[in-house]
Amino acid sequence: MKFSQLASVLGGKLIGSGDFEVTELAPIDLATPASVTFVLEGQFEKKVAESPALGFICFKALNTDKPVIVVPHPRAAFAQAVAAIYPERIPQWAPGISDRAAIDPSAKLGRDVTVHAGAVIGAGCVIGDEAKILANAVLGRAVLVGDRTVIHPLVSLYDRVQVGSDSIINSGTIVGSDGYGFFPDGMKWGKIPQVGTVIIGDNVEIGANNTIDRGALGNTVIGNGTKIDNQTHIAHNCRIGENCAITSQICFAGGVVLGNHVMVGGHTALNQHISIADNVVIMGNTGVTKSITEPGVMVSGYPAKPHLEQRREYATMQKLIDREKQTIADRRQNKENTEL
Amino acid sequence: MKFSQLASVLGGKLIGSGDFEVTELAPIDLATPASVTFVLEGQFEKKVAESPALGFICFKALNTDKPVIVVPHPRAAFAQAVAAIYPERIPQWAPGISDRAAIDPSAKLGRDVTVHAGAVIGAGCVIGDEAKILANAVLGRAVLVGDRTVIHPLVSLYDRVQVGSDSIINSGTIVGSDGYGFFPDGMKWGKIPQVGTVIIGDNVEIGANNTIDRGALGNTVIGNGTKIDNQTHIAHNCRIGENCAITSQICFAGGVVLGNHVMVGGHTALNQHISIADNVVIMGNTGVTKSITEPGVMVSGYPAKPHLEQRREYATMQKLIDREKQTIADRRQNKENTEL
Amino acid sequence: MKFSQLASVLGGKLIGSGDFEVTELAPIDLATPASVTFVLEGQFEKKVAESPALGFICFKALNTDKPVIVVPHPRAAFAQAVAAIYPERIPQWAPGISDRAAIDPSAKLGRDVTVHAGAVIGAGCVIGDEAKILANAVLGRAVLVGDRTVIHPLVSLYDRVQVGSDSIINSGTIVGSDGYGFFPDGMKWGKIPQVGTVIIGDNVEIGANNTIDRGALGNTVIGNGTKIDNQTHIAHNCRIGENCAITSQICFAGGVVLGNHVMVGGHTALNQHISIADNVVIMGNTGVTKSITEPGVMVSGYPAKPHLEQRREYATMQKLIDREKQTIADRRQNKENTEL
Repeated sequence: MKFSQLASVLGGKLIGSGDFEVTELAPIDLATPASVTFVLEGQFEKKVAESPALGFICFKALNTDKPVIVVPHPRAAFAQAVAAIYPERIPQWAPGISDRAAIDPSAKLGRDVTVHAGAVIGAGCVIGDEAKILANAVLGRAVLVGDRTVIHPLVSLYDRVQVGSDSIINSGTIVGSDGYGFFPDGMKWGKIPQVGTVIIGDNVEIGANNTIDRGALGNTVIGNGTKIDNQTHIAHNCRIGENCAITSQICFAGGVVLGNHVMVGGHTALNQHISIADNVVIMGNTGVTKSITEPGVMVSGYPAKPHLEQRREYATMQKLIDREKQTIADRRQNKENTEL
Repeated sequence: MKFSQLASVLGGKLIGSGDFEVTELAPIDLATPASVTFVLEGQFEKKVAESPALGFICFKALNTDKPVIVVPHPRAAFAQAVAAIYPERIPQWAPGISDRAAIDPSAKLGRDVTVHAGAVIGAGCVIGDEAKILANAVLGRAVLVGDRTVIHPLVSLYDRVQVGSDSIINSGTIVGSDGYGFFPDGMKWGKIPQVGTVIIGDNVEIGANNTIDRGALGNTVIGNGTKIDNQTHIAHNCRIGENCAITSQICFAGGVVLGNHVMVGGHTALNQHISIADNVVIMGNTGVTKSITEPGVMVSGYPAKPHLEQRREYATMQKLIDREKQTIADRRQNKENTEL
Repeated sequence: MKFSQLASVLGGKLIGSGDFEVTELAPIDLATPASVTFVLEGQFEKKVAESPALGFICFKALNTDKPVIVVPHPRAAFAQAVAAIYPERIPQWAPGISDRAAIDPSAKLGRDVTVHAGAVIGAGCVIGDEAKILANAVLGRAVLVGDRTVIHPLVSLYDRVQVGSDSIINSGTIVGSDGYGFFPDGMKWGKIPQVGTVIIGDNVEIGANNTIDRGALGNTVIGNGTKIDNQTHIAHNCRIGENCAITSQICFAGGVVLGNHVMVGGHTALNQHISIADNVVIMGNTGVTKSITEPGVMVSGYPAKPHLEQRREYATMQKLIDREKQTIADRRQNKENTEL
């Protein structure tokens, strides 16, 4: 694809000559003389002069002789350009229903459904149009999968789990296993049947090796548009809002309620039965012990506090430690002086 | 089922009329005018008056005109009631042995064993009566599975792993992969063969996506009645006692020994080769660096300390920080006053 | 095998009589009167006198009447001895290609490849000589697997992932799922196609239930000889050096660069886009927020600092807390005295 064609695809304005082939896209730090690259933020503008790239895609005209495509939303343009330049790397799956899949006769498959080898689809499942159930994925009984949703290899969806349309669930993710519900029976543990399920919305993307437990009585819910990275655990009866950004190795204890558009950094833990307001940002490596009621605050640390307060307190504590270390050093020095 | 019948099922005493259908169970906070609900603790008694529920199940008579079932153990009754009211939501699996399973001819299957499509059972395995090996689960060579145990879809049990009776292992859990045993060989790492195995007791429930590594020489052991949530890692040669409650995203380093009835909160890490006494409670988000020898203590924080001590020390530290912040603020104020 | 034969196998020097059968190996703390045991470090030499073991393997002659094999590298000898004494416990897999595997006709399999039941191998895959693809593992399109590499049951390798020779990937590990790449599109998240892949070197061992995401534009790379334990997450575009020792439940955010021979303890988190110098040791339960440029340092805590400094600061903080507690206690005592 020529640079000029790329400008059309992106709906951008071309400045300079677009008459060369685009074969490689690269971030500005890794651009080579064969690359087209991106200036996604103003702070990177100063790297343009020294960049070996053939051309740039930016949100504004640049001070360079090289060709530039100006687009209103450079990150969206980046996503579009990647898809346009590397079409062969966008995942595709062989269509059709493998005769090595095991599909219960009572399951209902929509139009143009793909089912790969080793996939198992239980009684009463309903699979939407153009959905894809890939190799060795297992759907229990009465699982619902929406239109165009992709269930990757080796995913396990337990009985009655519901997944909306245009969603993606990656390999190794387990949805609908029993929540951790036991009651003390002397020194033993009695099991509380977990009779709820998990309901996942539309346009949800869930990464690899996550676990989302079914609700005890009610349901565990993942709202529309929410994106989850890898190895996150969502316990029974959590209700995650819409368009949340949830990264990896996060531990949601039971009954956590997240508003909409909440962002959670990796390796974080949230205490049970707490609520997090809309647009809150929880930084990585945080331990959230209490509900956060103020929308849009950014918190960090353990126990979680507003990030600026946490940093100030940390700095104060560091000052106290440094002063004490100095006091001890001074005292030792005085003692040595006295002894001389 | 009528409320009066439910009273019989629970072995409880009915106060008031039991002549209505029970179609919905709900926690007291989520009860609707169609619900029967539970008063599991005295603190919830005050919610009875304003609850729209049709009837209550409680450990004592309640000050209400609505019907009440009085039971000696309300949590056990809760578990029983859930099973009685929602029988169709208790998992069931189609019986029989799928012709799409791959079972080595030398494997021995007990009476009424269920094996679903895609399950693979290796040479020399012994599967107990009424055990269930569900879709796409993989058992290596000489794996032992006890009577009535359920191995969920996509579980991997490596060679020679032993699982007792009446146990449950959920999807994505891996039992018996090699422990992390390497020795420095110059700047490279040499592998120490891991020739032990994993022995899991009876009445054990293990959630989704856990990993339990085989022992190096001896075995990794999970005691009878222990319940493990999701995404917990148990390294080689750990010995977990009986009736422990181990929640999610816990990292057990190698050789950790847990007594009986130990409880461990989520997102916690335990250092290698330490021992934890019976009945210890380790709260969530804790880092346990040393053995805990006193039975029954509750610990938290990093490094773990008795919880009350940890809280007191945290409060003291907070006081020091606050006082220092005040001192700095006062000094600034004084300086400003002086300058005026 | 007789003790004298074991001496030959290990290339060691036998002191005393080697004329007895070796049937059990044990660590020195667990040795029984039937065991041969190891003295791997000088500090364990004092345990020899009271040990019931039949014989010892050590890096030097021991002050004992019992037979000893002296070897130059006792840990390497330990590994060799385990393999020699327990040959039946070293994993073996039935050879051949199962007719229950689903292998795309365009895949190229080398000499003596093993493919077990339920394994799925996609179009254009290339599998090296003597490689083993075990039960229900799934390889997407154009996956490369090197000679003698073992892909355990229920592993998912996405399209175009490359694994070198003599490597091992354990069950439940997912390689090549999309990196977490989204851009804000109003209050929604737009997806950035992840068109890189994952390249894993030779002699790499990866444990169970890890996730290694494919790169966004460039690749995610795991260097030769690196060993990874379980449940570790490696985000897109990380570049892990050679011979690193990476344990369990570690969260690598996007774009982390590790030098060679870096060691990382369990339950640790590393911030995005940071670099770690060669030979750095990151202790367990650490939160690394910034790059570490000095080779070979040992760091701990959150935020990570050099370990000795961290310990000193922790001790100083503890002293401040203890002093404040004492001050409060004294004040209370004074008050009581005054009131009397």
